[in-house]
Amino acid sequence: MPRAGLCSRWGGRVLPLLLAYICYLLLGATIFQLLEKQAESQSRDRFQFEKLRFLENYTCLDQQAVEQFVQGISGDRWVIPAWTPSVETLGPQSPLSQKPAKTRVLWGRVIMEAWVKGVNPKGNSTNPSNWDFGSSFFFAGTVVTTIGYGNLAPSTEAGQVFCVFYALVGIPLNVGFLNHLGTGLRAHLTMLESSPQTPSPAYNHGPSERTQRLLRFQLLQILGLALFLALGTLLILILPPMVFSHVEGWSFSEGFYFAFITLSTIGFGDYVVGTDPSKHYLSVYRSLAAIWILLGLAWLALVLPLGPLLLHRCSQLWLLG
Amino acid sequence: MPRAGLCSRWGGRVLPLLLAYICYLLLGATIFQLLEKQAESQSRDRFQFEKLRFLENYTCLDQQAVEQFVQGISGDRWVIPAWTPSVETLGPQSPLSQKPAKTRVLWGRVIMEAWVKGVNPKGNSTNPSNWDFGSSFFFAGTVVTTIGYGNLAPSTEAGQVFCVFYALVGIPLNVGFLNHLGTGLRAHLTMLESSPQTPSPAYNHGPSERTQRLLRFQLLQILGLALFLALGTLLILILPPMVFSHVEGWSFSEGFYFAFITLSTIGFGDYVVGTDPSKHYLSVYRSLAAIWILLGLAWLALVLPLGPLLLHRCSQLWLLG
Ligand SMILES: [K+]
Ligand SMILES: [K+]
Repeated sequence: MPRAGLCSRWGGRVLPLLLAYICYLLLGATIFQLLEKQAESQSRDRFQFEKLRFLENYTCLDQQAVEQFVQGISGDRWVIPAWTPSVETLGPQSPLSQKPAKTRVLWGRVIMEAWVKGVNPKGNSTNPSNWDFGSSFFFAGTVVTTIGYGNLAPSTEAGQVFCVFYALVGIPLNVGFLNHLGTGLRAHLTMLESSPQTPSPAYNHGPSERTQRLLRFQLLQILGLALFLALGTLLILILPPMVFSHVEGWSFSEGFYFAFITLSTIGFGDYVVGTDPSKHYLSVYRSLAAIWILLGLAWLALVLPLGPLLLHRCSQLWLLG
Repeated sequence: MPRAGLCSRWGGRVLPLLLAYICYLLLGATIFQLLEKQAESQSRDRFQFEKLRFLENYTCLDQQAVEQFVQGISGDRWVIPAWTPSVETLGPQSPLSQKPAKTRVLWGRVIMEAWVKGVNPKGNSTNPSNWDFGSSFFFAGTVVTTIGYGNLAPSTEAGQVFCVFYALVGIPLNVGFLNHLGTGLRAHLTMLESSPQTPSPAYNHGPSERTQRLLRFQLLQILGLALFLALGTLLILILPPMVFSHVEGWSFSEGFYFAFITLSTIGFGDYVVGTDPSKHYLSVYRSLAAIWILLGLAWLALVLPLGPLLLHRCSQLWLLG
């Protein structure tokens, strides 16, 4: 197949797929925002009330009061197994006691954030929502790529149910899209690949010279492949972590750790770019980060199968030499 | 190939792979614990000191003191963009001010936990470490499966570097192991599959009767496959969530959401089984959860490629009928 034809066919297919992919992410962002934003503002109101009540009751603080206070803002009992429960000490009318102990993993952090946001006199109305459109879009991306940082997760039942169905369709769509992104490059590699298996009939030399020729060709091929891998790794795994480290104030090793944990789709969520509310990011920064994730995942989908191939080639070379 | 031979060959290969897999997880658990446990206890000591200093200085509390207190235990400034920094108000000798603002996503939660653990008078020495061997083993599992809940994540540089190399080897090992777990079942399915393509030459009936026979056979096959899928789904996606919901005190929909988010390897970490310190789990519970994750992932690796096959079969049937 001629290369130009291949490229145009690839480009002709990848554009509709890209459009479908982006539309799916936009749809997800809209619906997640719709389902989660109201619950978030209710949780904030509830917390504001709890804070005011606390400030009325506790003007003087001894150690027990501190304990109750801390237990109150941690929201449930899981951090103090052998100690008095907070619900009773806060009273049955406490809005916090209506929160069941089920979201215990994130609850402590969410309460901390909500509390401090509520305490801040300037920030009551101006604090940005966790579910603004950009964050919601980013969240939809972490679902379909299965990265799942977890810095945002649906807290309402409707949000959780929708998340399951959204992932059911989105994950295959994402896999298909990523595989397709790499197809152009892969086809090119395959053409390179097939050359030595079909040597031109014009070269009818002795078996020794043919072996030599094959050896040199394979050596060149391995070098080319290695260069290609090195360049791609530089562009995907070295330069972006340098940028992230610079912008976020991380060390380079932390930036690299973030990049690796992201592109391996492990996604602990201990480091997430673009989520520091004290920073004013350029609007292009988050978009670039999203494009980096997509290209990085496509690159890995292309490159990872080459590892065994390279090993096979090297062992062939070793046998021939 | 006779089925008994296939099974014994499969069993002969899967056992060494299972041993290697478990050894790799044990190795990872040991090293992660070694690297992270000391840093954890240092962080606890630092926090204990900060708590004592707070209790000496703040016996009476006004709103500003509460703000400083909350800001102090949240550890850095990210939650209050437009407000006074905590490092200055706490004083330059504050141990908390030595913690750079880089781990901001988890820091608030970690501080909350450490604080309340420190405040608890009975729990200073008896509180279990986050990096005990069981948790460390579970963490190693979330790395190699790329689930990455993030309720635990390495905080030291050594731990992060080791995590990268551990995942580099562990993820391919996990993929290989899971694929192999499903091979026995897949071979069985393939044998079933190949039957209708090679009808016995003894049946030399007319084309109409042969079509009828093929149709009935394919219908039976689809029914068998559907039954197989339904049974597996029941065992993997319905029963375990019921058990989890019962033990953890979640609703069924939350248990199902947890199961889906886990087996899709998204792993937000908002719900994690076996991590509630206020509960006394049977020791077998965590092991069963780990086995469920492994079998579930193997089951999905086997079942997901069957989806397109089933669609293809149905369309064939539709064309024939
Ligand atoms: K993940
Ligand atoms: K994750």
